[in-house]
Amino acid sequence: MNGKQQLVSEVGEFGLIDIINTDTIIDKMHVLKGIGDDCAVVRTADPNSYQLFTTDMLVESIHFSKLMQDEDVGYKAIICSVSDIAAMGGMPRDCLISLGTPGNIEVARIERLYAGMRQACKAYNVNIIGGDTVCSPQGIIINVALTGTIDSRYVVYRSGASIGDLVVVSGKLGLSAIGLVLLQQQIAQTAENQHFFEKHCRPTARVELGQLLAKHGATAMNDISDGLASELNEIANSSAVGILIDERLIPVARLPLAIEALLEKSSTHYALYGGEDYELVFTIAPSSYARFSAATKAAVAVIGQVTAEFSGVQLRTIDGSLITLESRGYNHFSN
Amino acid sequence: MNGKQQLVSEVGEFGLIDIINTDTIIDKMHVLKGIGDDCAVVRTADPNSYQLFTTDMLVESIHFSKLMQDEDVGYKAIICSVSDIAAMGGMPRDCLISLGTPGNIEVARIERLYAGMRQACKAYNVNIIGGDTVCSPQGIIINVALTGTIDSRYVVYRSGASIGDLVVVSGKLGLSAIGLVLLQQQIAQTAENQHFFEKHCRPTARVELGQLLAKHGATAMNDISDGLASELNEIANSSAVGILIDERLIPVARLPLAIEALLEKSSTHYALYGGEDYELVFTIAPSSYARFSAATKAAVAVIGQVTAEFSGVQLRTIDGSLITLESRGYNHFSN
Repeated sequence: MNGKQQLVSEVGEFGLIDIINTDTIIDKMHVLKGIGDDCAVVRTADPNSYQLFTTDMLVESIHFSKLMQDEDVGYKAIICSVSDIAAMGGMPRDCLISLGTPGNIEVARIERLYAGMRQACKAYNVNIIGGDTVCSPQGIIINVALTGTIDSRYVVYRSGASIGDLVVVSGKLGLSAIGLVLLQQQIAQTAENQHFFEKHCRPTARVELGQLLAKHGATAMNDISDGLASELNEIANSSAVGILIDERLIPVARLPLAIEALLEKSSTHYALYGGEDYELVFTIAPSSYARFSAATKAAVAVIGQVTAEFSGVQLRTIDGSLITLESRGYNHFSN
Repeated sequence: MNGKQQLVSEVGEFGLIDIINTDTIIDKMHVLKGIGDDCAVVRTADPNSYQLFTTDMLVESIHFSKLMQDEDVGYKAIICSVSDIAAMGGMPRDCLISLGTPGNIEVARIERLYAGMRQACKAYNVNIIGGDTVCSPQGIIINVALTGTIDSRYVVYRSGASIGDLVVVSGKLGLSAIGLVLLQQQIAQTAENQHFFEKHCRPTARVELGQLLAKHGATAMNDISDGLASELNEIANSSAVGILIDERLIPVARLPLAIEALLEKSSTHYALYGGEDYELVFTIAPSSYARFSAATKAAVAVIGQVTAEFSGVQLRTIDGSLITLESRGYNHFSN
């Protein structure tokens, strides 16, 4: 530490979390999982049920901009947290919403923001039970803290992936990031491109799918908030395994030519690094996966396998070469 | 709404809360108290125990400045929320901490901030079970979401004040606001003025006192975060009663001459409007108060009585006149 002081931008979000995540738990019997998963997990008075907790902060000009409708910003703020509950296999329940806002913002904007939040809360049966309202010197700040419940038999951590498990994702990936590009370039919505906008502005949290997967024995699960590459690295690192995925198997959207012409990167790039799709990525034993597939029509795709041959995440590209997938999703600090 | 749009600064925090607090609860059996008290209260699997929730957002340059040590900012961020739990009569348990920080801040500052948070969490037996870490375009943002537990027989809302109850406060009031003046004027700490700095930078949350009061039948309770006038108005309005207090009975600090010379307002003014003392103000039947007084040596002072003669809050001044106390504590929006 002589001389030069290290900056937050140099250690990034994960470096910060390492600094924060020391000596945080006093009651180790009560806290089953603290920092380091989609949700914290604590015991309740009912041994058959655990409580889940998650929180997300969204800051104007970092996580959203005036290009998005206020209702959509509010809706998505709730979905971010609901999706974390889904990624454990749980059911969302109660939320607290903190709002920071400059004084010179129109009250009508705040009303629209909360209208969007209420819509999302109704869609996922979440009670808004409290919050805080403060002044912000610049831009709107939203913090959502959300609880959930889960059957204690079925909680899915990101640390349970086993050698030989399949690696599976729900939905199609990269659409949200492509939707953001369309918003930023102020492209008009059409029937052909509408699903990209919707995925970015009104994403779905996979709560039912998460519960179904938990009951069918998914061994590790994350929601895709930071991009597939980042989520896979979290699972591989937490589970101390390697993950090999095949580029040809990653479900991406078919791109209309008009959109393809706008994009600087491939569909795969947006799927791997785009983030905010709020789909689920999970590992599951092949036999469990067969039973799960028979029980549902959910759109999921096997993209790879858990392996002992290396640590971290590797991608077999379309041309057959193997590359290491680094955990670089959104790192807002480095922008 | 023709023409001119209303601004957040025109409706203030309480106007905003009215806008937010509509149609928020889906499961009315589960949620005993939503928005509108120090904490939300929900049922748990154990009928003898309720869960409490509170959240507080602190924004640099609004709620704290670089004049405060980073450790103190962190410590106080936890205390704000613990004090809300104390004001219901509860025990704090688990917290989630969201941090927004610019990338160009020294990591050492964040380390000091969390060192302060950990100190406060240890002092009050709070587990840090999760959080979020995001980029902020300007200044540090801290959001704390905290749970607590409370015996279902003893929860104290702010709405239970009854005609004839005594109005009582703990500690001495106004010290935190005076401490802030000393900080802002960069006055050196001395043995004589140290308690003003400490009250501002390292406040105490009255958790044990809150629990004792709950068991002794306090009928309504608030922590003093926004100043006595604001808290009394919340109790009077929520309870649909009037409150009459006597200026001579408000416990204020003796001011050394050197401090008195610096202050623009009276001690009473800082007590009524200063805020951040994190003492408790409560109402209690005279017979319950007698039993409580016999059971404790806690420094508390009767400052008035609950009355049916008017609504709102009135103050009998030292010269004997009656004035209406408006609910103006800190309103950051109007600055």
